[in-house]
Amino acid sequence: MPWFDLSERELAQYRTATAEPDNLDLWWKSRLEEARAAALPPVLTPYGADAYGPMAVWDVEFSGYGGDRVRGWHIRPAGSGDEPLPTVVCYIGYGGGRGLPSEHALLPAAGYAVFVMDTRGQGGRWTLGATPDSGFAGPEHPGVMTRGIATPETYYVTRLMVDAARAVEVAAALDGVDETRLAVSGGSQGGGLALAAAALNGEAVKVCHADVPFLCDFQRAITITGAEPYAEISKFLAQHVDLIPAALDTLRYVDGALLAKRITATSLLSVGLMDEVCPPSTVYAAYNEITAPKEMAVFPFSGHTTPRVHDERKLRHLRAHL
Amino acid sequence: MPWFDLSERELAQYRTATAEPDNLDLWWKSRLEEARAAALPPVLTPYGADAYGPMAVWDVEFSGYGGDRVRGWHIRPAGSGDEPLPTVVCYIGYGGGRGLPSEHALLPAAGYAVFVMDTRGQGGRWTLGATPDSGFAGPEHPGVMTRGIATPETYYVTRLMVDAARAVEVAAALDGVDETRLAVSGGSQGGGLALAAAALNGEAVKVCHADVPFLCDFQRAITITGAEPYAEISKFLAQHVDLIPAALDTLRYVDGALLAKRITATSLLSVGLMDEVCPPSTVYAAYNEITAPKEMAVFPFSGHTTPRVHDERKLRHLRAHL
Amino acid sequence: MPWFDLSERELAQYRTATAEPDNLDLWWKSRLEEARAAALPPVLTPYGADAYGPMAVWDVEFSGYGGDRVRGWHIRPAGSGDEPLPTVVCYIGYGGGRGLPSEHALLPAAGYAVFVMDTRGQGGRWTLGATPDSGFAGPEHPGVMTRGIATPETYYVTRLMVDAARAVEVAAALDGVDETRLAVSGGSQGGGLALAAAALNGEAVKVCHADVPFLCDFQRAITITGAEPYAEISKFLAQHVDLIPAALDTLRYVDGALLAKRITATSLLSVGLMDEVCPPSTVYAAYNEITAPKEMAVFPFSGHTTPRVHDERKLRHLRAHL
Amino acid sequence: MPWFDLSERELAQYRTATAEPDNLDLWWKSRLEEARAAALPPVLTPYGADAYGPMAVWDVEFSGYGGDRVRGWHIRPAGSGDEPLPTVVCYIGYGGGRGLPSEHALLPAAGYAVFVMDTRGQGGRWTLGATPDSGFAGPEHPGVMTRGIATPETYYVTRLMVDAARAVEVAAALDGVDETRLAVSGGSQGGGLALAAAALNGEAVKVCHADVPFLCDFQRAITITGAEPYAEISKFLAQHVDLIPAALDTLRYVDGALLAKRITATSLLSVGLMDEVCPPSTVYAAYNEITAPKEMAVFPFSGHTTPRVHDERKLRHLRAHL
Amino acid sequence: MPWFDLSERELAQYRTATAEPDNLDLWWKSRLEEARAAALPPVLTPYGADAYGPMAVWDVEFSGYGGDRVRGWHIRPAGSGDEPLPTVVCYIGYGGGRGLPSEHALLPAAGYAVFVMDTRGQGGRWTLGATPDSGFAGPEHPGVMTRGIATPETYYVTRLMVDAARAVEVAAALDGVDETRLAVSGGSQGGGLALAAAALNGEAVKVCHADVPFLCDFQRAITITGAEPYAEISKFLAQHVDLIPAALDTLRYVDGALLAKRITATSLLSVGLMDEVCPPSTVYAAYNEITAPKEMAVFPFSGHTTPRVHDERKLRHLRAHL
Amino acid sequence: MPWFDLSERELAQYRTATAEPDNLDLWWKSRLEEARAAALPPVLTPYGADAYGPMAVWDVEFSGYGGDRVRGWHIRPAGSGDEPLPTVVCYIGYGGGRGLPSEHALLPAAGYAVFVMDTRGQGGRWTLGATPDSGFAGPEHPGVMTRGIATPETYYVTRLMVDAARAVEVAAALDGVDETRLAVSGGSQGGGLALAAAALNGEAVKVCHADVPFLCDFQRAITITGAEPYAEISKFLAQHVDLIPAALDTLRYVDGALLAKRITATSLLSVGLMDEVCPPSTVYAAYNEITAPKEMAVFPFSGHTTPRVHDERKLRHLRAHL
Repeated sequence: MPWFDLSERELAQYRTATAEPDNLDLWWKSRLEEARAAALPPVLTPYGADAYGPMAVWDVEFSGYGGDRVRGWHIRPAGSGDEPLPTVVCYIGYGGGRGLPSEHALLPAAGYAVFVMDTRGQGGRWTLGATPDSGFAGPEHPGVMTRGIATPETYYVTRLMVDAARAVEVAAALDGVDETRLAVSGGSQGGGLALAAAALNGEAVKVCHADVPFLCDFQRAITITGAEPYAEISKFLAQHVDLIPAALDTLRYVDGALLAKRITATSLLSVGLMDEVCPPSTVYAAYNEITAPKEMAVFPFSGHTTPRVHDERKLRHLRAHL
Repeated sequence: MPWFDLSERELAQYRTATAEPDNLDLWWKSRLEEARAAALPPVLTPYGADAYGPMAVWDVEFSGYGGDRVRGWHIRPAGSGDEPLPTVVCYIGYGGGRGLPSEHALLPAAGYAVFVMDTRGQGGRWTLGATPDSGFAGPEHPGVMTRGIATPETYYVTRLMVDAARAVEVAAALDGVDETRLAVSGGSQGGGLALAAAALNGEAVKVCHADVPFLCDFQRAITITGAEPYAEISKFLAQHVDLIPAALDTLRYVDGALLAKRITATSLLSVGLMDEVCPPSTVYAAYNEITAPKEMAVFPFSGHTTPRVHDERKLRHLRAHL
Repeated sequence: MPWFDLSERELAQYRTATAEPDNLDLWWKSRLEEARAAALPPVLTPYGADAYGPMAVWDVEFSGYGGDRVRGWHIRPAGSGDEPLPTVVCYIGYGGGRGLPSEHALLPAAGYAVFVMDTRGQGGRWTLGATPDSGFAGPEHPGVMTRGIATPETYYVTRLMVDAARAVEVAAALDGVDETRLAVSGGSQGGGLALAAAALNGEAVKVCHADVPFLCDFQRAITITGAEPYAEISKFLAQHVDLIPAALDTLRYVDGALLAKRITATSLLSVGLMDEVCPPSTVYAAYNEITAPKEMAVFPFSGHTTPRVHDERKLRHLRAHL
Repeated sequence: MPWFDLSERELAQYRTATAEPDNLDLWWKSRLEEARAAALPPVLTPYGADAYGPMAVWDVEFSGYGGDRVRGWHIRPAGSGDEPLPTVVCYIGYGGGRGLPSEHALLPAAGYAVFVMDTRGQGGRWTLGATPDSGFAGPEHPGVMTRGIATPETYYVTRLMVDAARAVEVAAALDGVDETRLAVSGGSQGGGLALAAAALNGEAVKVCHADVPFLCDFQRAITITGAEPYAEISKFLAQHVDLIPAALDTLRYVDGALLAKRITATSLLSVGLMDEVCPPSTVYAAYNEITAPKEMAVFPFSGHTTPRVHDERKLRHLRAHL
Repeated sequence: MPWFDLSERELAQYRTATAEPDNLDLWWKSRLEEARAAALPPVLTPYGADAYGPMAVWDVEFSGYGGDRVRGWHIRPAGSGDEPLPTVVCYIGYGGGRGLPSEHALLPAAGYAVFVMDTRGQGGRWTLGATPDSGFAGPEHPGVMTRGIATPETYYVTRLMVDAARAVEVAAALDGVDETRLAVSGGSQGGGLALAAAALNGEAVKVCHADVPFLCDFQRAITITGAEPYAEISKFLAQHVDLIPAALDTLRYVDGALLAKRITATSLLSVGLMDEVCPPSTVYAAYNEITAPKEMAVFPFSGHTTPRVHDERKLRHLRAHL
Repeated sequence: MPWFDLSERELAQYRTATAEPDNLDLWWKSRLEEARAAALPPVLTPYGADAYGPMAVWDVEFSGYGGDRVRGWHIRPAGSGDEPLPTVVCYIGYGGGRGLPSEHALLPAAGYAVFVMDTRGQGGRWTLGATPDSGFAGPEHPGVMTRGIATPETYYVTRLMVDAARAVEVAAALDGVDETRLAVSGGSQGGGLALAAAALNGEAVKVCHADVPFLCDFQRAITITGAEPYAEISKFLAQHVDLIPAALDTLRYVDGALLAKRITATSLLSVGLMDEVCPPSTVYAAYNEITAPKEMAVFPFSGHTTPRVHDERKLRHLRAHL
């Protein structure tokens, strides 16, 4: 796939054309307060010692949006006991859930604790999920980008971003987590959630890693790419034309490009100039709003993926800033 | 797409290898009684006279599974007043909802009343839906075949089939519907629902039309086709291998090939011998169980569609049997 | 498929770069006079009462281009006798023929008579045809866009547009048709023919509905889309390079964007901004030439299709203007 | 593409299940006599000396089916004057026409004269054609497999096979052609025509080369492959179900597997065991009927193509047998 | 993708039809002795402490086939010093190279040392490689399955399997490796290499993990799948038909299904019944030859991948058997 | 595929943005001198008289890059003895090798001698090759665009271009070749090699034919097309991001757009305006640098192919200029 979006020079200047809702901070404050009001304490259950041996793993359940119980993993390096550790809260790409601890061993191997948030109602496509979206009995085959899109209060992504913000709060309070050294991290949808969590948790997040992030500059994205998952929205609106104005309004409340200016974490983003799934301009739409210290890793020949060497850059960035 | 399934001779003999759950009738009786217990009266609102003129249209809302309000259309021929008419209850294919009345004009033009059932949680792909699955705020982009699949009580298809059975009961009680002349009809998912509704409503249904029906002989279907929507299930179970036994058990409760022996309606089914979406053997799995008067329209060169001439065969079949 | 053509602002201003042939009106006058000179009276045969019951259907045969006999359907609302009714002449999309009356029941159900024109030499791909192109024995698998393209006189589209213009004349003269209340209508190729018929019949047509019309601004279309059927022409000219000048000249005679300025009917067009088959600029190329009262239904997320709600807009438009 | 058809052992035994029409020889005799009765003398015009230099080329026009004028090339080795030479009549694959002399230089370079028959109504897809099907003004974008399929007399393939048989008669009578040393040759459609021409011309043809031939064992082919051009027929019959019996009957008259037993030429066929376009069993259906001396070149890993080394085998076969 | 290969019952019984070369053990003995004779000591260079922190990583270079220097990684758990550890030798799937240490952190996190072998001449498609095939300057875009296929001595896979066998020998001799507790492991090509390494190293390997292994039962594989990389061979032989006998002979020397009977390690294989890339029968062809203790993880709905839960099964299997 | 590159006006003005290495002429001089220094005399072996009869064919082996032995064909018109003839040196498209003499008969039939150069390490995809890349045992399935790309000295394309330049020198010295009348010719990769050979051999080449040439303006090509073979490079660099600067530098040494200004031959190039494989601007990047007499054949509707009529234009151009 060749370059199809703005030129590199234009990308550096690009600002989203979507206007922020007047009441955005207040609106999110209400969402988070509702969630906190309905929250029960997290439950951590030891998991999988017969497989993982010295690496310590807990199966986590905590309260997310509206008090819904969200699953996750808490994983610590072998032999770290309950020493307070710098901790990375991780979010997962579209269609995936928390998976299994085996998928999250890099950071513990390198000395960090991790807190992996499951993705409600996802997790049947390429890895496992264990969290239903409100009221259902289990994980599903994906297709959630238009669920409840008629209002921001009912929209799936609102619930998911509240979960993401709550995950930071919950992780910060765990034994063995150094609450002054928290990072958020993820790729694609996970990157969009990392940006949202960094924006919604403010100073509580010290480092934000967002690779080829999804959930940014929706209104442009749905007109310049035909690739899913953005295209779930455009295909839906192709039939539900009467919902177009309401849906576009809803998307403003959960747009990473509008939330990004609230980020205070030291940030490292990445972009693939051949990324048709999360087009470069939508990534820059978020990046260009961040006023905190920031870096962009630009991969001129990458699509919707990052090269493996970026793993090491992120590890070095963590060591330098967390 | 060439012939890929059993030969025509084998198809005529084929019987599903899936065993019926011991308690199937009782189980379904409980589901329907729960739904009736939670039901409120249907609400009918006149619709679209500025567009449809003499054709009479009502926007319907009735109580389906667990009392959930399900939308639909009731449409009557121009000038028919409230004369009791033979009535066809119609179900929609996968990904679609009730759509608009304009899509259902053939039967009214030809002198029949129709009652179109919306499809909960569907209706964003190729036509419109207006009914959320339990508790959500509106229709969604589809992908529902694995929702709640861990148990038959929580499975999406259970809810959908209860809606379908309830639609017949509700339609039968409407003014202007001749309850002794009810048919059910649909193609693909709509065909699977027509079979289920005919099976679950017994003598109340006089005629059953099911074109290239979906939701039949699931356990075979998911091993012989890679096409969606059956493949939603196989792809999900490719990751959720621990759920395979439970999911296969769940599918037995909603399998059209197991329900079909309960059908007493005069039935007309159709099959495309090149149908990769609903493979021929899965259609025959249901057809071969029906003991009521029945016909199969065999289309040797068709995939997952019926030729237009089959519309006229169904109209003639209605005139002869309803 | 994302937006790939001009921006909305540019579309509103866009004018075709193709020059009209000097003698275009005269040339078409000759074509129509030749057809009328060779015409025999239409033959109408009652059809399908066992299927359609009260809806009245005739199998029609009338004289089109060069006197060739073209098939069609005349369908009237149940119980309308021979009362003069407002009538819609309908044209079919590429690859399709007149199909069966069951496909055309909406307008009769809503109180209008319809006259459906078969498409010569088409009708084997997604519905039925019954009219050969000159001299052949029956309908064919499609692929007609380059037939006779070396001169406008021998070009397939010329024959088809003469058929379309003749269909209006024939319909106007039928018993039970109110010749002062005639509309033309169609989508894609049918939309292109509706535009052509409105242009060639002048005041005889009161309302013109053309959805995502084909056959407009050919010279641009064949350079900006790789999708068939426009691409039949570009692929042909990739080999027959010596024919390029002649073919481009031929296309000027049948270009809806050049014919459109002759339309006097109140017009309702539609466009999908993600339509790769009939790109938005080619639709606007026709629309922007119309000087009669006109509306454009713009569907920002649609490809080469219209959402179902547009059906109701067309019905309301008919009630207001026919 | 893997092996998908019968095993090699089964292929060696396979016989078509299609029954020959009772009157097949008589029927073809009538077709050929009609053509001869309407024939005018061929016209040969020197062509392209500025390009081809010493290689002698004539643009040919001769009378085929019903007297229709068919184009072709007659090409002779440099310096051969009008010496009587062994001559190969060549037929072209589907979608192609006679092309240009540059495409047919191998045989003249190696000392043979060639007579290339154009393909009526084809020649816009991958090379050039110059012969319209009856009554049209020029070549077309292809799609002819269902043209006139309702009866054998009106079927396109009938016309094409009469052209092919006539090409042998015409070539035999040209100056500089040694009528006792005639071969027919072609691949895919050209192979099917070579078989038909060998069958219909009997002893006049000494050698027959048919690579991966099309037009054989139609009734099986259309059920075991979904690839065009066989699939043009199955897709057409998916809609035109009423035409299925007539179409299957028509196909019997032009089936290479039924004509093949009439071949007396020394024959060399080829087959690709991974050929989805012309499945192996359909090639063997013809081969297994030939009673003349014959060889089959079996390519176990080839699809619908022959490896280049087969060119040399054919040249050696010509030197040995022509 | 549905089930397309043998039934489960047939798979359990299936034996390869390919005959073992008479001299297979001797032949491999010569290959390995040549490699050992040309070998230089391995070189280990500390790597990436700024990224990986406490996890110990060395960039390895050792002598493989013919003395060619092959790269790899040696990675040990944080804090393990030079304590002798159970060690897993890992091989990579087709197109990939050793990648980066970040991709191999699970085993170290769980307490094992790993030795990752780079894949000569691969590593440009989905992860990194650093080892040229003999004589080239660096890694390449892949496509190596036919390199040198004319004889077993020149074949690429021979070189690769010698590398794989040598990797076990080299790992066994490293400080901090418990040579009595060595496993081999990999998926796809890596699984094929694990089988080969286990076969060629005999008792030195205690545990063998081979997921959906490639490089087994080649002669069948290239006739039943059209997917790469097996199809690289069939496509090559489609042109190079003269090489077919020699190539089929070469493949016998490197066929995992023929080598497997030499395995003495406790083995855990996996198979996806919908795997088109490495068809189930070719996996069973190897599995059914193993006489050592063995298990097969059967994934009925998986293609060419294993579900994540299999990671944990492999970890538990390692704890039980290594 | 529609027009996707610059407009025709922009194409006429377009100049590559890639800067020429300072020492380019010197660098190439060294490469060629190294090759000449290592060269042995060519060997010509008569070939295939049983197949080709009077056409004279030799299997050629000559010394290319670094003295590597490269195969080829020398073919002469029937009856030409050893008369000095104008001769065309031919190069082959990507994935192909020299093939067989049967593929190169046009020029001998028309009176020219040809010298066909095999393509090292290619020739397994669509025709045959017989020349390994340095040190391997035979031809391969392709994928060579990134082989040795880290430096210009190790790059595959360098070796290939040296072969191409050497082929001209070797052909010029053969008996029966008129060294004052030499042309180079090829399409796609063959076109890129023809340009390189013309540039590197200077006055020795009188005519250069390059159809839709590859290997030009690499740095732009890899950002505007996602089609292989250019995309082999971009996909490789998507992973090997650390190699991007070195690879871009390497590409400058073998860029046809930078070499082209050295061409003195009368040149005929061609371009398809819908060519996604070798985008139009990259063809013009070379064409616009040529200062010798030149013509561009522009095919507005062609992709990566030329229409057959271009064969005749090239023959006429040869007769006029060679």
